[in-house]
Amino acid sequence: MITRYSRPQMVSIWAEQTRFRIWFEIEAHATDALAELGVVPREAAATIWAKAKDAVFDVARIDEIEREVKHDVIAFLTHLGEIVGPDARFLHQGMTSSDVLDTCFAVQLSRATDLLIADVDALLAALKKRAFEHKYTPTIGRSHGIHAEPVTFGLKLAQAYAEFARNRERLIAARREIATCAISGAVGTFANIDPRVEEHVAAKMGLAVEPVSTQVIPRDRHAMFFTTLGVVASSIERLAIEIRHLQRTEVLEAEEFFSEGQKGSSAMPHKRNPVLTENLTGLARMVRSYAMPAMENVALWHERDISHSSVERMIGPDATVTLDFALARLAGVIDKLLIYPDNMRRNLDRLGGLHNSQRVLLALTQAGASREDSYRLVQRNAMKVWRGEGDFLAFLKADPDVSSLLADETLEAMFDEGYHLKHVDTVFDRVFGKG
Amino acid sequence: MITRYSRPQMVSIWAEQTRFRIWFEIEAHATDALAELGVVPREAAATIWAKAKDAVFDVARIDEIEREVKHDVIAFLTHLGEIVGPDARFLHQGMTSSDVLDTCFAVQLSRATDLLIADVDALLAALKKRAFEHKYTPTIGRSHGIHAEPVTFGLKLAQAYAEFARNRERLIAARREIATCAISGAVGTFANIDPRVEEHVAAKMGLAVEPVSTQVIPRDRHAMFFTTLGVVASSIERLAIEIRHLQRTEVLEAEEFFSEGQKGSSAMPHKRNPVLTENLTGLARMVRSYAMPAMENVALWHERDISHSSVERMIGPDATVTLDFALARLAGVIDKLLIYPDNMRRNLDRLGGLHNSQRVLLALTQAGASREDSYRLVQRNAMKVWRGEGDFLAFLKADPDVSSLLADETLEAMFDEGYHLKHVDTVFDRVFGKG
Amino acid sequence: MITRYSRPQMVSIWAEQTRFRIWFEIEAHATDALAELGVVPREAAATIWAKAKDAVFDVARIDEIEREVKHDVIAFLTHLGEIVGPDARFLHQGMTSSDVLDTCFAVQLSRATDLLIADVDALLAALKKRAFEHKYTPTIGRSHGIHAEPVTFGLKLAQAYAEFARNRERLIAARREIATCAISGAVGTFANIDPRVEEHVAAKMGLAVEPVSTQVIPRDRHAMFFTTLGVVASSIERLAIEIRHLQRTEVLEAEEFFSEGQKGSSAMPHKRNPVLTENLTGLARMVRSYAMPAMENVALWHERDISHSSVERMIGPDATVTLDFALARLAGVIDKLLIYPDNMRRNLDRLGGLHNSQRVLLALTQAGASREDSYRLVQRNAMKVWRGEGDFLAFLKADPDVSSLLADETLEAMFDEGYHLKHVDTVFDRVFGKG
Amino acid sequence: MITRYSRPQMVSIWAEQTRFRIWFEIEAHATDALAELGVVPREAAATIWAKAKDAVFDVARIDEIEREVKHDVIAFLTHLGEIVGPDARFLHQGMTSSDVLDTCFAVQLSRATDLLIADVDALLAALKKRAFEHKYTPTIGRSHGIHAEPVTFGLKLAQAYAEFARNRERLIAARREIATCAISGAVGTFANIDPRVEEHVAAKMGLAVEPVSTQVIPRDRHAMFFTTLGVVASSIERLAIEIRHLQRTEVLEAEEFFSEGQKGSSAMPHKRNPVLTENLTGLARMVRSYAMPAMENVALWHERDISHSSVERMIGPDATVTLDFALARLAGVIDKLLIYPDNMRRNLDRLGGLHNSQRVLLALTQAGASREDSYRLVQRNAMKVWRGEGDFLAFLKADPDVSSLLADETLEAMFDEGYHLKHVDTVFDRVFGKG
Repeated sequence: MITRYSRPQMVSIWAEQTRFRIWFEIEAHATDALAELGVVPREAAATIWAKAKDAVFDVARIDEIEREVKHDVIAFLTHLGEIVGPDARFLHQGMTSSDVLDTCFAVQLSRATDLLIADVDALLAALKKRAFEHKYTPTIGRSHGIHAEPVTFGLKLAQAYAEFARNRERLIAARREIATCAISGAVGTFANIDPRVEEHVAAKMGLAVEPVSTQVIPRDRHAMFFTTLGVVASSIERLAIEIRHLQRTEVLEAEEFFSEGQKGSSAMPHKRNPVLTENLTGLARMVRSYAMPAMENVALWHERDISHSSVERMIGPDATVTLDFALARLAGVIDKLLIYPDNMRRNLDRLGGLHNSQRVLLALTQAGASREDSYRLVQRNAMKVWRGEGDFLAFLKADPDVSSLLADETLEAMFDEGYHLKHVDTVFDRVFGKG
Repeated sequence: MITRYSRPQMVSIWAEQTRFRIWFEIEAHATDALAELGVVPREAAATIWAKAKDAVFDVARIDEIEREVKHDVIAFLTHLGEIVGPDARFLHQGMTSSDVLDTCFAVQLSRATDLLIADVDALLAALKKRAFEHKYTPTIGRSHGIHAEPVTFGLKLAQAYAEFARNRERLIAARREIATCAISGAVGTFANIDPRVEEHVAAKMGLAVEPVSTQVIPRDRHAMFFTTLGVVASSIERLAIEIRHLQRTEVLEAEEFFSEGQKGSSAMPHKRNPVLTENLTGLARMVRSYAMPAMENVALWHERDISHSSVERMIGPDATVTLDFALARLAGVIDKLLIYPDNMRRNLDRLGGLHNSQRVLLALTQAGASREDSYRLVQRNAMKVWRGEGDFLAFLKADPDVSSLLADETLEAMFDEGYHLKHVDTVFDRVFGKG
Repeated sequence: MITRYSRPQMVSIWAEQTRFRIWFEIEAHATDALAELGVVPREAAATIWAKAKDAVFDVARIDEIEREVKHDVIAFLTHLGEIVGPDARFLHQGMTSSDVLDTCFAVQLSRATDLLIADVDALLAALKKRAFEHKYTPTIGRSHGIHAEPVTFGLKLAQAYAEFARNRERLIAARREIATCAISGAVGTFANIDPRVEEHVAAKMGLAVEPVSTQVIPRDRHAMFFTTLGVVASSIERLAIEIRHLQRTEVLEAEEFFSEGQKGSSAMPHKRNPVLTENLTGLARMVRSYAMPAMENVALWHERDISHSSVERMIGPDATVTLDFALARLAGVIDKLLIYPDNMRRNLDRLGGLHNSQRVLLALTQAGASREDSYRLVQRNAMKVWRGEGDFLAFLKADPDVSSLLADETLEAMFDEGYHLKHVDTVFDRVFGKG
Repeated sequence: MITRYSRPQMVSIWAEQTRFRIWFEIEAHATDALAELGVVPREAAATIWAKAKDAVFDVARIDEIEREVKHDVIAFLTHLGEIVGPDARFLHQGMTSSDVLDTCFAVQLSRATDLLIADVDALLAALKKRAFEHKYTPTIGRSHGIHAEPVTFGLKLAQAYAEFARNRERLIAARREIATCAISGAVGTFANIDPRVEEHVAAKMGLAVEPVSTQVIPRDRHAMFFTTLGVVASSIERLAIEIRHLQRTEVLEAEEFFSEGQKGSSAMPHKRNPVLTENLTGLARMVRSYAMPAMENVALWHERDISHSSVERMIGPDATVTLDFALARLAGVIDKLLIYPDNMRRNLDRLGGLHNSQRVLLALTQAGASREDSYRLVQRNAMKVWRGEGDFLAFLKADPDVSSLLADETLEAMFDEGYHLKHVDTVFDRVFGKG
């Protein structure tokens, strides 16, 4: 996570002050539950809230204590004791650091996911708007980078919409994976803390109860979370690369918005480069890479070790901040994308109707030719067009093996673009629902 | 995927003959639908089924054709034409290779997932059986590899059970991701094929309809699938490493079953090594690694390119066969695991009750000491035990700062093991449901 | 590794028979050294060679024994005993399985690397040949997929040549990493085997002596080896993607060779797709992915565990066979690549000299304008060309702020292509050496 | 890269001010060369140095400009113009941003590598010191976590020394990979800049000339660099895990230094956890993960795209800062490691001499038994010891099939520890050189 590729709201989730605030809330809610159970005095619980609920924690002071005790939660509790006074000894009763840390991480990841889902929603809105704008804008469909048959630009965006709608569902599932609370004490046995404390804190923090923790929340949950972010990032890469392709000089069917004053190149003033989507391609690589250490984190030793911690201190912010930035950037790119229907038309007409080759093939088989013969007949005429020797329809008409099976008017009727686009509505209905 | 680490049922899903069989079914069902729509003669559809439904496809012949045409589906169709005769020209009408290939892959992955889910069920059964056997078998819980507080061996297995129950849910979700059918023709526009063909084939093959395909089924689905397998593999690694730890000479709380005639080492006849779980550790690394190319596959160019294909020809079998083998091997390891409660007891007693340190700490705070003072009092006595200088309880009693706050009988009462295990039932109820 | 993407010579390195042959050689050479040291009878060593040097090992028999003893090297030795007779007891004296397995793996990887280096040599030869053919063929250089300034097609290939020349050096270094022999016995102490045996076997097998093994050869060596293959694969991906771009319909500056009888698409007979380079893109993803488990293999427990073994049984063949296939395929693609200088010219002229914008910019600064002003002057004229409004040179001449600084003939002289290509020789000399 | 896991010297290499300083030096040296070639006035070059060589660049101001022009190098040059005055227009003549950025990155990575090599040197020194201290300290060697045969603690450290000596060589090679300078202008043709400028800047910045750049330095170099860091990290993980194992309660042969005032657990005051090496395990996962995006960065489109940039802005600092921190932490752990020879002795004696099983096996074969029979004889006695039924030597003496081949005194002589350690000197000589 670097400032250049981050947005303030997501960054704030990972701020030290936010973290200490969440730690405090977990500890204070737990103390409430302990008071309710008669383990600690009710007055102590009340005092804790009263003294610290509006406190700004002194990060430098906590760091100073940590340098001595070499333990972050103990340092925080010591500082909290300085704020709360003697009643602080009723804090953290029967709890371990992991109860605080893991539950806090769950809160942070949940909040982060809420932002990511909102990002996806903004992207979906932009995709939908542009998809309907260009629902019937014809453009050549390409397989292998080679002209195939016509599609519409709206269809391209409908595909992206469906893909990000799936990603939305995946993020919701990923959130459910990690939104659990564990207050189970050392090695997770509840020996020193009643399970009802966990239930209370979970409810207050908006989390589910972790059914069985072993001091830590099991890391298969986080592995699933971060791999899901990797998949979302891969979808970003797909759409980014699509736009980069469309902006190529020879294609130029779409272009990233280029603002006043922007400079494309320090050397070449004529340049307008798809730098945002290239940037997104790189960011996707990063988010994807975090899946590996997240999966390696699963195999903690016995009831827990702490090898996952350094990884999560990094990828927690890195993955969510970077993905948030990338999703927002992509939404902006789509929203302001310059789309050039005329260029799409020009490219579409480039191969002189060659994209109707399949239709001719099918008609030949229907007219009695074998599949293999039909293929050969079409291919031999298509290759001449490919080599720039002339017009596809004219060649077909002039080929006696073709014309013996298909009349000229039949062939001509096959060069109708509407034929290719007749199911645009079908696909839009599937993706966006029936109007 | 190598024979050594594979099981026949999963391997057979990926056999060439199976693949051609599925291709045939997709083509034949599509022809049925086309006949129903009046596009091809009903008799032709019937002939196709009659001639080929029991055919054994000649893999060598198909390979021979492919060497010429350099296209696998065309090679298959040519061979199918040799079986079916002239009516074969009504096959594949308006379809592309991807319609066949992607739908076939969906069928294969679905079947593979069914086996994987059955594997997880067998593992869950083994875990549950052993968990209840050792529900109350005390053993030391370890954090950081260091003795912490007592747990039971059943609790360890309950944790693993809960983790694999989550993995079961994830596999079901992963199956839903990839179990879609696309028969949408070139660049996915249905220009040459009616969407009702897709609906028919989907229903017959047990798949959902892909809402929007672009000739190919979008690869974010497969990315999600293979990353999910990576997470399951990581859970395997966790449990495998747990067993490897327990079998260490100094720990020896559990041991892989060692069969008659087995040799642990070519050089050292005394060895009994946890080779199965070490093997599982390696296999987990492999399954995990396949997540990366699966994610890189998402960003196909425009409506499709074929870069995903070589990856999937490898990781389709590799990931599912290896995971199937690993899950089955792990189920066997758990089922036959030699468990040594006496050694657990011996290890548990090793630190002379030091694992009650937290309880003493809490009692001191309850008795009026600050958290910091309490911690220091307990730690200074614990460190003496750690250094092997004597007995924890005796030291505590002899420490005037402790004894001024806690009477001897109070201290003694704190060295009761039942205290640590009182919530075993709570956790088991959460994991396995109330008896 | 699958047959489809493999070549026989590399596959044979990984065949069971090859492996057993190497095992035999290691054992027999070790026995020679032991005989020389007087540990075993010279006659026994001679008998071993005499009886087994031409033996074909019975793989099925070895498998059968392994099913009982669950140990591959013991199974082999038992079978070897069946061939050699009673003197077989002098085999493997003081050795461990790892001595045989790791040294064998070193031999296999070394041989595999020799093939890979030969593959790179063939690719370098093809690149060089085509680079010189097109040393002065002008083509547009593209940054961000956008026309920048002219280069030559030979320069593109020279870059690829330099990159693969680096990869050749890396493969040589990688081979040196793994070409070591360890015959150090259990936990690597030489307790039961004299270090001179290791020296003898190393010399005979063409390996260096591993300075300190701990029963196994340390796996950081193999991690370095497989990550190196991942880098080579990434270079393959780069060149493959370059060709895929050049073959795009709108660009069509080069094309994969398309053989007689080849079919590009089952549906669209007009297609000629860059399927080989797309295939290479996918294969590169696979080879790259093997770097991760290879790096995870490094951290074996204590003197060794066997978790690396299952990984290596897979990635040993998978990575080398796939990379060998990919390099050979790429060499063929380059060797037979269809190159279209006319299309390069057409694309180059497409932006009407806009690629000279930098030269104009520099001239303006030389003529006294500030960098910022110069940039603005050029950009405002360039953007008009970009929008298709006319000719760059004409616009510049018509712009009074430009013409006040640069005379028309000065401007005209800036639209000379030779200006851009004057250092082609310099670069070729650097890459291929001075003629 | 986060503050918690970073050291100031490495962080400062990546500071904005450092970067701008390097950019300035590259630009100013290039202007010197241009002046020498007569392209720009010598006075201008002198003025640039005079005005800016001690400047502190205003990062906020540069950011402000970048927000408008959306181009970092242009923003810097504009700010530099504010410092230098009109002569600034002679800066960057014929150069592109990549000339500055890539050459700067080469300088930063080279400096970073110098620190990493120094880190490895410190680690090697610590390893060597402790290795010689414990050269002859016997400890049990373990394969598969199971007692095998005796080694010495010094041998363990000698292995680590040899591994990090290899890593040192790899870092030197990795530095050579990336320490190149490219000043080749747009698309790398030197059209607007003489190659002699590149030679001058390279020499001044301590870099080699990049033989062929395409506006950018090819990213296979960086892929090799970052994968090498991944391998070094994997070695860190290996040694960290070794220490974590040794510190396990049941083993306790070594322990991380535990400082006064340190608290091992917030809940359990008795804990002393190997938190530093667990932390290193996690950091290794992170450094390793950066290899993937670095390899994906290789395949830039055509002469360049900018997708690599966001990746490198992250992994440049992240990988080097984290690895620097990890190496330094590991050196400290080794240097201050608490080593417990008494516990090693206790563990070594635990299996009552069972680790001599191989020696007995070999003696039996020498005495005429077949390998299979010898193995069975030893194994049947060893398994009784394994089950805790008694003493290995006694069982052997009492077994008539053994005693008929080996006399009691022969057997007794086999239980001599010196036998196992006789080649410690050999290995030390190999690793550290002959004393």
